[in-house]
This record gives sequence, structure tokens and C-alpha cells, in this order.
Amino acid sequence: MSASIHRLAGRPAPSLDPMIALVADDMNAVNAVILSRMHSQIPLIPELAGHLIAGGGKRMRPMLTLASAKLLDYTGNRHHRLAAAVEFIHTATLLHDDVVDGSDLRRGKRTANIIWGNPASVLVGDFLFSRSFELMVEDGSLKVLKILSSASAVIAEGEVNQLTAVRRVDLGEDRYLDIIGAKTAALFAAACRIAAVVAERPEAEEMALDSYGRNLGIAFQLVDDAIDYVSDAGTMGKDTGDDFREGKMTLPLILAYARGSADDRTFWKDAVEGRRDGDDDLAHAVRLLRDTRAIDDTLARARHYGQRAIDALGGFPAGKAKDALVEAVEFAVARAY
Amino acid sequence: MSASIHRLAGRPAPSLDPMIALVADDMNAVNAVILSRMHSQIPLIPELAGHLIAGGGKRMRPMLTLASAKLLDYTGNRHHRLAAAVEFIHTATLLHDDVVDGSDLRRGKRTANIIWGNPASVLVGDFLFSRSFELMVEDGSLKVLKILSSASAVIAEGEVNQLTAVRRVDLGEDRYLDIIGAKTAALFAAACRIAAVVAERPEAEEMALDSYGRNLGIAFQLVDDAIDYVSDAGTMGKDTGDDFREGKMTLPLILAYARGSADDRTFWKDAVEGRRDGDDDLAHAVRLLRDTRAIDDTLARARHYGQRAIDALGGFPAGKAKDALVEAVEFAVARAY
Repeated sequence: MSASIHRLAGRPAPSLDPMIALVADDMNAVNAVILSRMHSQIPLIPELAGHLIAGGGKRMRPMLTLASAKLLDYTGNRHHRLAAAVEFIHTATLLHDDVVDGSDLRRGKRTANIIWGNPASVLVGDFLFSRSFELMVEDGSLKVLKILSSASAVIAEGEVNQLTAVRRVDLGEDRYLDIIGAKTAALFAAACRIAAVVAERPEAEEMALDSYGRNLGIAFQLVDDAIDYVSDAGTMGKDTGDDFREGKMTLPLILAYARGSADDRTFWKDAVEGRRDGDDDLAHAVRLLRDTRAIDDTLARARHYGQRAIDALGGFPAGKAKDALVEAVEFAVARAY
Repeated sequence: MSASIHRLAGRPAPSLDPMIALVADDMNAVNAVILSRMHSQIPLIPELAGHLIAGGGKRMRPMLTLASAKLLDYTGNRHHRLAAAVEFIHTATLLHDDVVDGSDLRRGKRTANIIWGNPASVLVGDFLFSRSFELMVEDGSLKVLKILSSASAVIAEGEVNQLTAVRRVDLGEDRYLDIIGAKTAALFAAACRIAAVVAERPEAEEMALDSYGRNLGIAFQLVDDAIDYVSDAGTMGKDTGDDFREGKMTLPLILAYARGSADDRTFWKDAVEGRRDGDDDLAHAVRLLRDTRAIDDTLARARHYGQRAIDALGGFPAGKAKDALVEAVEFAVARAY
């Protein structure tokens, strides 16, 4: 990769480790809730849900709830149940996503829909989604319920929006940002925000954490989009060019299309509409992305949102929690390197 | 049909008309909520949701919420929003059901998954489900949220249970009742019960309405199961024998299998496992169902649950609302004739 990022000399690469260490005890409690609440008399439910939940995800969203609570010096345990609810919503979304996309691989493992079929994935997703609301109801905060039910509706809207945008080469950056703002960033935002609700902090802190999560979510997604064109399967658990072969509109492609010649645009249109999915085509695509600086600038956009996420934390006191949340952003934007 | 039911001489066939008339004004208010809340900036959402919501369903579940509220002389309007939430949960379930079953016809119309594809049906179902929780949160009753989130989880569990029971000829009556108790009756029960919550009535009345709805739901489902073997497309919006051709285990088949000879059992096993789906096979199946009195006794079971539903109303004062709720049960169990 040729993209430039200004690393401080001598500083190790940013990582999620400080955040993981910060919330390790809390995460054990969350995992216990997850395990006990994905249980059902119907064996297929924990079997299928467990495949994905135990399947090597970073648990980024519940981790953000926990780390945000640490930032606010919250000492209760309501956030354990709610972090589990957030992870259930996320897992339900992944199960349905893989059905919608017909995916066969996630995080390097076969997807649930491939192993157990689409019907089971749809229904177990529904179960986890219902269960997440049961967890929220047990917590009893209408404010949390409002934040997460609204995020869920926004996610579903974003998914439908993306579905209607499939293979549309002229999607444009604004609409794409709308889609990932809904699909990805809304749950990041809600995951952080609810920590301020349980910690009974003022509205301004709620909104600051919402902003942190939302911008971090967008940054994450944009870097994922870039990685798809530069990584190997080891980095992502998927192969380079998967998005390309699926005709998926992501920001690198949107930028390359916007900046391309008439010939380039014809190529991109053909690619997105499924008429160019060979290895030569991918190589040509990567060349065009490089020539138009589309990958570099996707990463620059990601850094912009990452910076906004960090600045949203400005009002919170310095300390280990804040350091960990900041480093999570640096990790998110530096992953492509 | 040869099955016997004891009709009072001179009394017209029971119908839903009294219940429809009882709640007509309220239902207009519910319809207004439904229309406004299925709206979205993404045009596909109201388009797809509207196809099913405007598609000739009886709106049985919201109607039960409204009629139960009438029974309790409730004079507020909280139940309008909640009845809409119930209908959204139901619609979401139908959208996902049709994907799971690969159905192409519902109520005589092409299903949404056939018109817009499975991905859109999955995602719009998710949207409606999220929206239903937003409606409940706006109402603000944690008790209602608990009842409906729990019902939703039970429904999803029932769906998965049914999925794992597909084409299993030895399913048995108990497990089948578990499945329809979860898939169908749980939402009927919740729809009735929440009326007692908004009317702030004692727990005993809540549970009486829960019991009314649950038993009515089971009766409805059992009669649907019987109708599948005796109706034409005009009655059900689907063809006779659809369940048979799909190898769907329903009570008539469970009874016929339990009562059949060794040869009959082989026939049923072949049928359920998909090796006998011709017109001759259906004719033979209907003959076996008649010989074992499986249809008659499915309807007798339905009358049993119907009677329990009616008896659950015993403690409520006589009047138009109670009459309408009783007649709805009579309608449910008499539909096959």
C-alpha cells in the first residue's frame, strides 16, 4: 500500500489491546449473559447462534458500551445485559445480511446460511432480535429501549436502501455515506450512547458518545472497504476483491468512478453490473483505484471521521479509558497498513 | 364435509361481523397509525409492506386488542398504537415465513418474496419488527414491552422448532401443539392481554384475556389445518392440499398417521418426505383422513380450544363486546363448513 499515514516515530502500531484489557472483566460478565440468553429448548438456536457468536468476532460493539461506561466511571452492572443486547442485535443483523448477500464466508468461516440454510438463519436472527429486546426490557430503561429500537429500525432501513442500490455504479458518495451511517454507524453510536444513559449522565455526554461511536463506525467501514482491495484472506477472513466480484458499491469504487475517464466509467459500469469479474478485471480495477488515488482518499476520508470521533471525546477527562477509546480509533484507521 | 357441529336452529352462521362493527372506529385509528408508521424515505419499504398489509388480511390480531379493550370499557387511545405494533409483528412474521417456506401465494395474491425477492422480504420484515418496538416504546409501558418482546421470542422459537420438525412424520400431537402454541397462539394471547394492561385491570383479567386469545389462536390454526384438506382456493386463498404437497405436518396428518395401519404409515411417511405429491396421492390422503376421522377430530380438538376460549371470558360482564368475542370463536371453529 502506498497510502500515507503519519505514525509517531517509535510508537508501536495502534491496537485494540488497551480497550480489550480495560473491559476484560466486564466482557466476561457480558459473555455469561450472552451464553445464558442465547439458550433455548430448541437445540438449533444455540447451535446456530453460537457458531457466529463464538466465531472470532471482535465484539467491538459491546466492548464500546463497556469502555464508554468506564470512561464515565460507571460502577454498576446494568451495562452487561445491555452490551449483550447490542451484540444480539448485531448478530441478528449479520445472520440476515449473509442471507441477503448469499455470502458463504465470514471471518474465514463458513456462514450459518451455508451450514444450516437460509430459513434457519432468518429465524434464529429473529429470535436473537427478540431476545435483545427482552434483555432491554429486563433492564427497564425506556430511554435505552428508545435508542436501540430506533437504531434497529435505522439499520433495517439502511439495509433496504443498500439493497435498492445494488449494482448502481452512479450511487454517489452522499448516498453511500447515508447507507453506512445507517447500516454500520447507527449501532456503534447507540452502543456508546447507552453507557451514558445507564450512568445517568447529562444529554451532552450522551450525544458526545453517540458522535464518537457514529464517526468511529463510519471510519471502520471505510477502512474495511479499502482493505477489500488490498488485503489477503488472512487479514479480513475474506479474499481480496470480494466486493469487486460481487459488484458491491463501496467508496473506493465510487471515487474511482467519479474521477475516471469515459472508458474507465464504462469499465466500472460493466464491473458493477457483473460483466467483468475475472482476475484480469480485478487487476485492472486495482490499477484504476491506484491511478485515481481512490484507496488513499478512502483512507483519508476514514481518518477524517476518525478525527471527529476522537474530538467528540474532548470533554471527557483524561485517563486509561479515554486513551483506549482514542487508540481504538487509531487502530480502526490504521488497519490497512 | 361430514363433520358434525351443533348449530342452534334458526341462528345464522357465526361471523366476525359483530366484532368488525364493534371496533370499526378504533380500527380506522389503527389503520392510520399503520399507514403513517410503515412510511420510510426508502420507497421499497412502504411498497412491500403495503402489499401485505393492504392485502386482504382480516387484521385479526389488532381487532382482538381493540375488542378486548371494549370488553374492559377502556376509553383511552393507547391501544391504537399498540394494536398497530401487534400487526407489524404479525406482518414481519408473515414476510419471514414466506421466505422460509418459499411460498408463492398468500390470501390468493403473489407473495412479497416472489415479487421483490427474498432479501427485500427479510429486510422489510426486520424494519417492521423494529418499528413495532418503536411504537411500544412510544407508548411507554414496560409491561406491554415485556409481553410483546417475550411473545416475539416465543414466536421465533416456535418457527425454528417447526423448521427442525419439517417432514418428520412422527412429530406427534404434543410437539405440534407446542409449535402452534408458539407460532400462532402466543401473539393472539399477547394481543388480547395488552388490552388489560392499558386498561389497568387486575392480573386475573390479564390472564383471562391471555387464555382467551391463546385458545382462540390454537382453534384457528387447527381449523386452518383441516380446511387445507377440504377447501378450494376460494375459501383460503390457497389450493386444497398445499400442506400435503409441501409435506407439512399438521394435526389431521398426525392423527391419521397415529391411527393408520402399517401400510398407511408407509404412505404418510412417503408423502411427508416428498415422494408422493400427485393428485392421486392427495385423493388417497383425503380418503385416509376420512377413514380415520382425522379431519373430524381435528375440528373436535379445535372446538375444545374454542370452548376454553369462551369459558376464559366467564368473569367478564355480558354485553356487545363479550358477544362479539364469543362469536369470533364460533366463527373460527365453524369456518370449515
